[in-house]
Amino acid sequence: MLRLIGFDGDDTLWHSEDYYRQANDSFAAIVGRYVDLADAEVHATMLATERRNLALFGYGAKGMTLSMVETAIAITDGRIAVADIHRLVELGKSVLQHPVELLPGIREAVTAVAAEYPVVLITKGDLFHQEKKVEQSGLAELFGRIEIVSEKNPATYRRVLAEFELPPEQFAMVGNSLRSDIEPVLRLGGWGVHMPYHVTWSHELDHGLGADDAQRMLTVDAPVGIVAAVAELAARAQG
Amino acid sequence: MLRLIGFDGDDTLWHSEDYYRQANDSFAAIVGRYVDLADAEVHATMLATERRNLALFGYGAKGMTLSMVETAIAITDGRIAVADIHRLVELGKSVLQHPVELLPGIREAVTAVAAEYPVVLITKGDLFHQEKKVEQSGLAELFGRIEIVSEKNPATYRRVLAEFELPPEQFAMVGNSLRSDIEPVLRLGGWGVHMPYHVTWSHELDHGLGADDAQRMLTVDAPVGIVAAVAELAARAQG
Repeated sequence: MLRLIGFDGDDTLWHSEDYYRQANDSFAAIVGRYVDLADAEVHATMLATERRNLALFGYGAKGMTLSMVETAIAITDGRIAVADIHRLVELGKSVLQHPVELLPGIREAVTAVAAEYPVVLITKGDLFHQEKKVEQSGLAELFGRIEIVSEKNPATYRRVLAEFELPPEQFAMVGNSLRSDIEPVLRLGGWGVHMPYHVTWSHELDHGLGADDAQRMLTVDAPVGIVAAVAELAARAQG
Repeated sequence: MLRLIGFDGDDTLWHSEDYYRQANDSFAAIVGRYVDLADAEVHATMLATERRNLALFGYGAKGMTLSMVETAIAITDGRIAVADIHRLVELGKSVLQHPVELLPGIREAVTAVAAEYPVVLITKGDLFHQEKKVEQSGLAELFGRIEIVSEKNPATYRRVLAEFELPPEQFAMVGNSLRSDIEPVLRLGGWGVHMPYHVTWSHELDHGLGADDAQRMLTVDAPVGIVAAVAELAARAQG
């Protein structure tokens, strides 16, 4: 029996990755005037800086911006113009200020699921930015609770479910990331509705789901499929 | 009757503002080689940039660092060297990486309070950074719950207390900031133990407490005074 349905935020309720992609493209255009980004050594320096900074800054636009500034200085050996560094900061601000645009049909899907189950929003990233997005989305009142977390791993879901005093077998998570939304929940014994977004951050592509997991998850193309998928998982959980 | 005691994190459990002060001093030393920071116009530009960015970035070291970079570019009219911008990014990283040093006696104080009441940690700022500090503090296991919030206002405390299903009259908060830890809790009808830190961020100095509030709060010099202060407030809450 399912007793709680979780929804992811970025790229499940509202568009997000597109804005990061645009910022990355602009970053490449700016530093591409100084260095050849196709050069293997440049690329390696860039990846190493980003990876090191992700561990220090965590997810989100502010960390990405600081990392872009540092990476740009590193790969240009300090030759980048100050005006271009200012452009990188403005890029980060534009990601923080982008309008919150809901995926078509998601409001109706969440409303329909919320009519049958308590729903919780579990979103990852920068606390301040996520709170603003939740508020601007106009969906906040549909969710009984909103959890903003720094990482979506089994420990995080275990903590959230403990606060609801709910065994994972009674929980299903809806989201676009196999790595963050589906795999950790299945590992605990829960259920997943995967709704792929049209672009996925490379970091989120890394997951360990296999054929054995098919029974506990369903994939939908768009929000309109969520209600039926939840009902199907509820039937399986019953059986 | 008191039934829950909250503790603030930064400058209540562990040192924090000192590191921000040091970063600010270093920032002033770096940009001071380009402009006269005592100049009224420079100072006004700096404050305006910081205030605008606080609304966009929220609290914390990452937002502060981005703001320092932007402010430095603005007040030097872009004359700042790229190497100095890199130094500013490194300053921000040093704040994120500083060791977590507990205030003397705070572990004993939290342990003693936790022996008599459920205790919750309510800390403001960057989610990722605060989680790391909580973990490094070694105090996490003393707290039944840890709430990391983006702003400490009456609405935040109301939400947290609602999750505990507790009326504010049964809650006391221990912290160094009158603005963030004491005033909003007193406004809801709760109780406060104010433990001033030796430095206070100017932003936190702004509060609206008056003589009428004296009955619902106590001030202590150091962690060793917390247990007695909580006991005294508990007696008042009883009466």
